[in-house]
Amino acid sequence: EKLGDVDIAEAEDFIRQHHSENPGLGPVEARLAEVHAEIAATGTYRHTPEELAFGARVAWRNSSRCIGRLYWRSLKVRDLREVSAPADVARECVEHLRVATNHGKIRPVITVFAPAEPGTHAPVIHNEQIIRYAAYRGADGGVLGDARNLALTELALEQGWQPPVIRGPFDLLPLMVSCEGHEPAMLRVPADAVLEVKLSHPDLPWVAGLGVKWHAVPAISNMRLRIGGIDYPAAPFNGWYMGTEIGARNLADHDRYDLLPYIAKRMGLDMSSEATLWRDRALIELNRAVLHSFALAGVTITDHHTESKRFLTHLEKEEAAGRKCPADWSWIVPPVSGGLTPVYHRYYDTDELLPNFFPAAKPSGCPVAH
Amino acid sequence: EKLGDVDIAEAEDFIRQHHSENPGLGPVEARLAEVHAEIAATGTYRHTPEELAFGARVAWRNSSRCIGRLYWRSLKVRDLREVSAPADVARECVEHLRVATNHGKIRPVITVFAPAEPGTHAPVIHNEQIIRYAAYRGADGGVLGDARNLALTELALEQGWQPPVIRGPFDLLPLMVSCEGHEPAMLRVPADAVLEVKLSHPDLPWVAGLGVKWHAVPAISNMRLRIGGIDYPAAPFNGWYMGTEIGARNLADHDRYDLLPYIAKRMGLDMSSEATLWRDRALIELNRAVLHSFALAGVTITDHHTESKRFLTHLEKEEAAGRKCPADWSWIVPPVSGGLTPVYHRYYDTDELLPNFFPAAKPSGCPVAH
Ligand code: HEM
Ligand code: HEM
Repeated sequence: EKLGDVDIAEAEDFIRQHHSENPGLGPVEARLAEVHAEIAATGTYRHTPEELAFGARVAWRNSSRCIGRLYWRSLKVRDLREVSAPADVARECVEHLRVATNHGKIRPVITVFAPAEPGTHAPVIHNEQIIRYAAYRGADGGVLGDARNLALTELALEQGWQPPVIRGPFDLLPLMVSCEGHEPAMLRVPADAVLEVKLSHPDLPWVAGLGVKWHAVPAISNMRLRIGGIDYPAAPFNGWYMGTEIGARNLADHDRYDLLPYIAKRMGLDMSSEATLWRDRALIELNRAVLHSFALAGVTITDHHTESKRFLTHLEKEEAAGRKCPADWSWIVPPVSGGLTPVYHRYYDTDELLPNFFPAAKPSGCPVAH
Repeated sequence: EKLGDVDIAEAEDFIRQHHSENPGLGPVEARLAEVHAEIAATGTYRHTPEELAFGARVAWRNSSRCIGRLYWRSLKVRDLREVSAPADVARECVEHLRVATNHGKIRPVITVFAPAEPGTHAPVIHNEQIIRYAAYRGADGGVLGDARNLALTELALEQGWQPPVIRGPFDLLPLMVSCEGHEPAMLRVPADAVLEVKLSHPDLPWVAGLGVKWHAVPAISNMRLRIGGIDYPAAPFNGWYMGTEIGARNLADHDRYDLLPYIAKRMGLDMSSEATLWRDRALIELNRAVLHSFALAGVTITDHHTESKRFLTHLEKEEAAGRKCPADWSWIVPPVSGGLTPVYHRYYDTDELLPNFFPAAKPSGCPVAH
């Protein structure tokens, strides 16, 4: 076994798991012998398409921070392991969006690009998500747009990205992909591939006039997928949104769009002290607006009450299947009304299981060209 | 060292900590020699009044689930180590309430009763808190009162407690104290020792008509205080309330007073689906009512936004003092609008430090007489 070679034990564990959860595949020994021989000869091995799909789905099932895992078997796996050129990767990310968006009836999808293999280089997507809004720092120090993406926006500008002539709070950033030995690529995400939902509110008509919107598909694009000892650094995946991700974090966090003071003012709330709970009231109305607007637009979304119940169903199913289901309490309990959700009132296993997704090796804002 | 003897290492650690945090006490060696000799002779040792006060305050400082620790130095320590007879303990719990209540300007207080020592028995308070409301199961299976206290209520009835002729949702349970070798005691907590706050709402006048109230002083009475190897099984302590404890747990939890569906109905909310966030809206109004009513009654209370900020101040102060401050994320982050509070957006040390408070050895509903 050489440095950089696949960990044989991890490969074996995975192949055994694949067979034991899929008895129809027959005895595991033949496949194990193949994998051993391939690793001995090349330092790595190739997953069969079935192994790749199973591995990706189990990586989701093992994502201890994800409340949406009841649907893990339904993940659509796009096997694009032959694709590694940055321009092709970027183009296929756009295609991923189209497949996932599905006119609002969102499908959970993962696109798996070329793995990291001894002697070759794997592509890396620098955007945290396929769809990200730019952030511009103004002369007064204030930020226009999504402050989370300041570094990514700077990177795009360095790479020659031309922002719109009139900069706005929701300018789409280009996809930035690199792969050692290739020309890095930057691709504008076409507007017609990005379904967006304009915010309105069931009772507060002025919300529709705020010009606030969000995109329909959350597609994380900088996490590393690891299956059976093999790393897939570019493997963007998406589910659909839980409303709080938009209404309690993206649009509400102080270092994101920070809308609560503005909404509270428009609601006419008494903001003279924290004890009036003006923040909490504005938060709920913002979250109502998100759920209402997505439903109105026919875009799949879930609320934190429903999703918490579904997660407990998932736990029961996993237990019935004789499996552990690790979960990270602080990520599973929603950021709104945590105590009202059944996921609040219990503890979880916290083992880390494989296959799984791992954080980007480098901050997503790192330079494309080194 | 005999079984049941004090752990000498733990005693030493504590004495050293007391001296190192209080340089005015002078060199530690003389006191260490005393403690060693006392343990050798008796199997245990007695804390000086200063050690007891310091130990109780540090036990609070080390309570990783408590968000209110900024005030740890202010804890008033009632040294009642000579008291162990159940009837006296119960009487002094009532006195604790009066000292702590202070006409609404609540003082953090701990009353330390006799320690567990080799050869003698320590008193145990069976009530989880000094003030607890009874729970009665009706013929239809429903519960009148605080369902959390079903077992404690049953225990009181077994011991001969006479509930009010007309049972209500807020009937005070008697204090139940036992101590091996003594007659167990049951004491009615006099109504004039229990300050209560009637719920009203700044905008919803019908809330005042609901007849909902809560007590002013949360005084946990079944946790074991452990200082320098010595256990104090009866050491009730209190702070003041953070509003969410009442508004998001005691009055809201499904297995407590479960008021949200009722409040939502009275508010006329659309309860046809979870996505209308009717639970969340009712929750915020209930919490506004709690904070409003306590303020109106001149009773100390804090809101979760203010208290979260104070806790971060506490962390900074502890860091500046060169100390770790362990904290349990899932207890520190409030059950309402977690994501809005600054305590949500970070992790904490999780070591368990001594001195500290520990859960009751037995469920609080265990029989008084064995
Ligand atoms: C189908 C609907 C889905 C829902 C409703 C859902 C919900 C969520 C939520 C609410 C979070 C927390 C996000 C945050 O607080 O930043 C999360 C995290 C996560 N989810 Fe899901 N998810 C879904 C699909 C998926 C899929 C398809 C995958 C992978 C194949 C996945 C893997 C993950 C991972 C790895 C994280 C942690 C991300 C991180 O560490 O930043 N989820 N999910
Ligand atoms: C002065 C005002 C105080 C405030 C605002 C405060 C706040 C809180 C809150 C909100 C909790 C969580 C309660 C729950 O979710 O059930 C808690 C737990 C706790 N607090 Fe404090 N606290 C205060 C004073 C004290 C004092 C004086 C002590 C001890 C001397 C203390 C020791 C603890 C302990 C041991 C817990 C954990 C209880 C358990 O495990 O059930 N606190 N506190």
